[in-house]
This record gives sequence, C-alpha cells and structure tokens, in this order.
Amino acid sequence: MPDTENPRTHDPVFELHAGGKMEIASTVALNGPAELSLAYTPGVARVCEAIAEDASIYPDYTWTANTVAVVTDGTAVLGLGDIGPKAAMPVMEGKAVLFKQFGGIDAIPICLDTTDVDEIVETVVRMAPSFGGINLEDISAPRCFEVEEKLKQRLDIPVFHDDQHGTAVVTLAALENAMKLTGKYHDTVRIVVSGAGAAGVAVTRILLAAGYQDIAVVDRAGVLHRDRTDLNPSKRALAADTADTTGRWGTLAAVMDGADVFIGLSGGTVPEEVVASMADEPIIFGLANPTPEVHPDVAHKYARVVATGRSDFPNQINNVLAFPGIFRGAFDVRATAITEGMKLAAAQALAAIVGDDLTEELIIPSPFDPRVGPTVAAAVAEAARRDGVARR
Amino acid sequence: MPDTENPRTHDPVFELHAGGKMEIASTVALNGPAELSLAYTPGVARVCEAIAEDASIYPDYTWTANTVAVVTDGTAVLGLGDIGPKAAMPVMEGKAVLFKQFGGIDAIPICLDTTDVDEIVETVVRMAPSFGGINLEDISAPRCFEVEEKLKQRLDIPVFHDDQHGTAVVTLAALENAMKLTGKYHDTVRIVVSGAGAAGVAVTRILLAAGYQDIAVVDRAGVLHRDRTDLNPSKRALAADTADTTGRWGTLAAVMDGADVFIGLSGGTVPEEVVASMADEPIIFGLANPTPEVHPDVAHKYARVVATGRSDFPNQINNVLAFPGIFRGAFDVRATAITEGMKLAAAQALAAIVGDDLTEELIIPSPFDPRVGPTVAAAVAEAARRDGVARR
Repeated sequence: MPDTENPRTHDPVFELHAGGKMEIASTVALNGPAELSLAYTPGVARVCEAIAEDASIYPDYTWTANTVAVVTDGTAVLGLGDIGPKAAMPVMEGKAVLFKQFGGIDAIPICLDTTDVDEIVETVVRMAPSFGGINLEDISAPRCFEVEEKLKQRLDIPVFHDDQHGTAVVTLAALENAMKLTGKYHDTVRIVVSGAGAAGVAVTRILLAAGYQDIAVVDRAGVLHRDRTDLNPSKRALAADTADTTGRWGTLAAVMDGADVFIGLSGGTVPEEVVASMADEPIIFGLANPTPEVHPDVAHKYARVVATGRSDFPNQINNVLAFPGIFRGAFDVRATAITEGMKLAAAQALAAIVGDDLTEELIIPSPFDPRVGPTVAAAVAEAARRDGVARR
Repeated sequence: MPDTENPRTHDPVFELHAGGKMEIASTVALNGPAELSLAYTPGVARVCEAIAEDASIYPDYTWTANTVAVVTDGTAVLGLGDIGPKAAMPVMEGKAVLFKQFGGIDAIPICLDTTDVDEIVETVVRMAPSFGGINLEDISAPRCFEVEEKLKQRLDIPVFHDDQHGTAVVTLAALENAMKLTGKYHDTVRIVVSGAGAAGVAVTRILLAAGYQDIAVVDRAGVLHRDRTDLNPSKRALAADTADTTGRWGTLAAVMDGADVFIGLSGGTVPEEVVASMADEPIIFGLANPTPEVHPDVAHKYARVVATGRSDFPNQINNVLAFPGIFRGAFDVRATAITEGMKLAAAQALAAIVGDDLTEELIIPSPFDPRVGPTVAAAVAEAARRDGVARR
C-alpha cells in the first residue's frame, strides 16, 4: 500500500508514535565471552544465590529498585473513558517517558486485559517482585479506590494512583500559593470541588489533610451529603468529612453562591451567572481537559487567580510536576509506602519552588523547571524517614 | 557500614550487577511543551482513539510489537533449582540484555510470585496486551509444558519456552553438523538423550521432527517406555514416540552400548566404561553446566565430536544462538505463534552458518558471530510465512 493511502503518514503525532516511544537499554557491556560470563552464566549464578540467601540485597543487585509498573485497565483514559488496555498503551508509554525524563525512573507499561478489581489486584500482586513500585493509572472510580487500598495492604512497595494523588498534590500546591495572593484563611475559606471521581475524592482528602475545613463536593446530583441514598462508600465517607459537618447542601449553584474557591475536576461547564455569584476575588481552577469547567476568559472577569489543566494558559495543573519526584524520593530511601505525609510534603515543596516569583500568573512551576523533580524528591524522602517508611 | 565490611564490594560479578543491568530509554525527544503535547496530552489522545477504532494498528504505534515478557516463577533457575522469583531476577535481566544485544528486542523481566500453573497462565494472559511475545524461562518441568500449552491456546502472540525450544534448536543445529562429519544416517543413527525435563523432552521432539528415528530417552529410573507406571503425561507421550517403537529398553548403560550419539541434559556423570561401550566415532554432547555429564577430556578419548554447554571448551551449545534471532524473525513478520517449522528453520540456518568452516572443533557458530541473529531471523520469518502465521 503506497504511503499516500495512509492518512496518518504525514501527521506529526502519528509519525512521532510510529514504533512506540520507548525501549530497553543495557547498562552493562557485553562485547565478548568474558563479559558474558559475568553478566550471564556462570557469573550471574552467584548473584542469584546471594539473593536467595538474603532477600534484603535484592534491590542492590537488580534493576527493580528503580522500576515502577504503570498499571492500567484502560477504563478511564484521559477524557476518552473506557477504551480498553491496548488503546491505553500510548498514554502509558508517555507516562513512562515522563517518569524517566523527570525522575530518572524506569517505568514499564502494564495494560491489563481485565477490569475486575480482584483480578487486577491478584495480577499485580503476583508480578510485584518484578518492580520497586506500582503506579496505577486511568482506572475508573470507584474501582480505583478498592484496587489501590487492597494493593497497599498486600504489598510492601509504594502503590500510588496518579489520577488521584498526583492531581491532589499539584492542586494543593497551586491552591496554597493562590491563597497567599488572596490572603484568605484555611479555616474559613469556602471551597467547592466539582467531581467526586478519582481526582475529586483525592483532592478533597488532601485539602482536608492540609487544614481546609469548609468543602462541598458536588457530583451530577448535587452536594454529597448524608441524606443522599445514591452514594457509593467512597462518596459517603467523603460526605461525612465535608458537607455533613458544614451543613452546606444543595445544588452546585447553591454552594457556589459566596464560595471562595472552585476546583473543577468533572468536565461540564459552570454557567457564568454561577461564577458571578462567588465571593470577592475567588480562586477558580477549571481542570477538565481539553475544555475547562470555567473558560479562563470567563473566569478572569471575576477571579483573582485562575488555573487550568492546559499548557496553553498560565498556571497549568499538570501531574508531571508530582509523580516523578514522588517516586524518585520514595525510591531514594526505599520507602515501603507513599504516606499522606509524603504527599503533603511534595505539595509544600512544589509550592515553595515558586517562592518570590509568585504572581497571579505564576502559582505553580513549569514542568520543565529543572528544580521540580529534585526538590519534590528531597521533600518526599525526608517525609518518608519522618513517617517511618524509609528502609535506608 | 564501611565498604570493607561488604565482601561483595571488590567482586567483579557483584560490581557489575550493582543497580541491575538494564534501564528504560525514551525514543522520542521531550524538551519542551510542544514536544510534550505530541508525545503526551493532548496529542496522544488521537493515537489512543485510532487504536480504539482499529486494533490492527496497535503494533504500529506502540512499543509492544518489539517487546517480549521474560516470564519466570523462579522454580528451575540455571542449575540452582527453585530459588524463587526474586533470586531469579539477575538471570532474567541477563536474558533481557541478550535479547537486546543479539536481537534488538526489548525484553521485560517478569518474575512471578506464584508457582501454580493456572495462576501463572491467568496472570500472563491478563498482562499479554502489554507485549508482543512471551518467553517462558526457568519454570520447572512438568509444569512448564502445561503453562506453555495453555498460553499458546489462549494467546495470538508468540509463546516460547527457551529452556525447551532454544536448547532444542541449538542442539539440533550442532548435531546436524556433527552428523555431516561422521557420515552417520538420520534413520539409523542410535541416539541416547539423558534427561526428560524441559530440555530433554524438547530436544527429543525436535530430533524426531528432523527425521531421527532411533532415540532412547533416559531419566533417573532408566529408559522411558510403556511399561513404566511412574511416568507423567509428557514422559508417557515421549515414550510412545521413542523406545516404545524401537523396543530398546533398560538402563542408561544398556542403551549406551553401541549408541552413536549421547546428549546429556540431566547433570550427573556417565561412567567412562559406559562411554567406552558406545559405537565407533560417537558424538557426545554433555550439556549440563557447570559439570558436563561426560567431561571433554574423557569424551575425546572415544568421540569424533564433543560439545558442552561451557564457553571454555569448543562447540558451546548456547541458547543465545537461537532465542534472539527466533523472536526477531517472528516479530519482523508479526507472527501469531512460533511453529515447529520456524524452530526447524532456525536450527537449519544456524547449522548452515558454519558452512565450509566445519570441523570437529567448530560445529556451531560463536554467540558473537554477527551473522547469527540476522540469519536465524530471516529463516524464521520465511518459515512463519510458509506456515501461515505471519501477519505481514
């Protein structure tokens, strides 16, 4: 078939993806029998025997201490939804490339041909000896919560669901800096989180952990609260820690009236009159891609600080600011888990990088700021030691 | 702890293995937002959507078409036996390095924390979308036969158990060349295969497929034959195609008397008087590592051609001569399986490389002969087309 018949031939995205985006490389020379006898038989047998005798040296003499499996079932890929494990692979390869570039981490995409929670968990547990950590990716809610929880219980290596915690860390970092600009207070600022999926739940949880007290979480049926009979367990638990304590119930429009902060993690569009009803100088994060819940042009009419998930506007909330440094820090101290303290430390370190450069147009660093990965990693490693999960 | 306390610090094998032997590398540039938007969001979404619409392009736009999972449960690692998945990892990494160096293939070590046949099969099937092929490694017999058979039935990508078929291909290649030197005939030459594990079964099968007719397979209790009540199904089937048809039953010593070829795949030592009882100018392959069943010094007293599994003697039967080229050829045509025809073609191509250089001391090429990988690959690709398993 001549090239001209393939519409993808001259498309820069498809040209870049031809053959995939990654490969394996050897870190040892293998140019003759002598080197072969060290790296393979008979030499390698001594390393095997040493690990069989003392498993604690396993991370020292294999590549596993620096590897993370990027595991998906392809059910919630970007904004595309349930497109299956194969169609998810280009995203997982992209993630692996980002892990390497920004964290020096060797990531292996694992796209699973099952969407059953227990099958996912069993599969990952069985292959876990091959890796130093597990990064869950694009698994739809609420199954993602159960998968993560079960894996954390079963494994003694870091397990991290980036769609939850990566987003949460970067959002918190950006909000902390936005708060400095507006002079609002953690204990009184009124926050509306739109979306109660993976990101919405995790963002709300980290905001609570960071001291924010007045949060209303909204899904398609309105604010999560105790009288709703349609909530899954994760939403019910979230209601208990948010609207159930504040008493602010109702529709999105109702809770937006007078709110100081809007964080959109749901898609959809917030009507301009609802945006207009917010408190003075609100903070508006419309993080849905490609279409923010509040377009920056609208948001800027009312808001003091605006952020999106897009690279073509200022203040991009991009997970790549978090996950490479978080795993780098965890791996550097051979952490057995990624704790809440490590996530908070990552957010604080990320916010602090902006420092004196802080303006309404710069509340979060660029992904290409070379300080990001090392700074986040150092803070995460320190927090791991503090939390008692560091093995060295 | 000062370095001097660690006995491994100045050991070249452990120094080479520090940090492992492999890493992930990106094949795309990612130096700024423009490149990021092609390799990751938003650009990548278009590749995902295209694959979701037409899965046949999956191998074109992901790294999977060039990847093989090197899967083990750590139950039969080298000569070390059941040392578990972690202690097996250095061998799997070594294998991955060899796959890259000699076949240009991206191999990912997957060490499984289960030894249950069905759990291994289910785990591999679930993660199979992530890979272009499965190389089973160091899984003990007879479970390895069942794992391979079930995976071949369930998957439409190449599944290959190297301990069986890699050894079989290289052994057949070496034997074919040895036969040319001795002038013995395929249909009358008397062969003794010592060992009925993974390698013994596969070597015998490929010899039968190549036209050898008089083979006795010996395990610890003597020749496999129909009257034995202690045989597992794979041994029983093998007996039916070997001693059951020739009627040569008995001990190793009994069938070695007058035999033309000995192929040792079992370990242990064959007494010299048994070696002395073989036919004139026998062919002796003592392939156990590190101690051949017949030491070359003893073998040379009687044999015309001697081969071992060791790199420090001539005629090393080394699987690296086969598996990189076999997968390279299978991947080059996107084969759905590795057929018997492809294995035979690999053996013939490997034997032919020696060509006019053939002597008693050179019946098989060196692993570092640059012709090996490409020649085997081309023959395997052609055989895949002939056998109707090529997708391009």
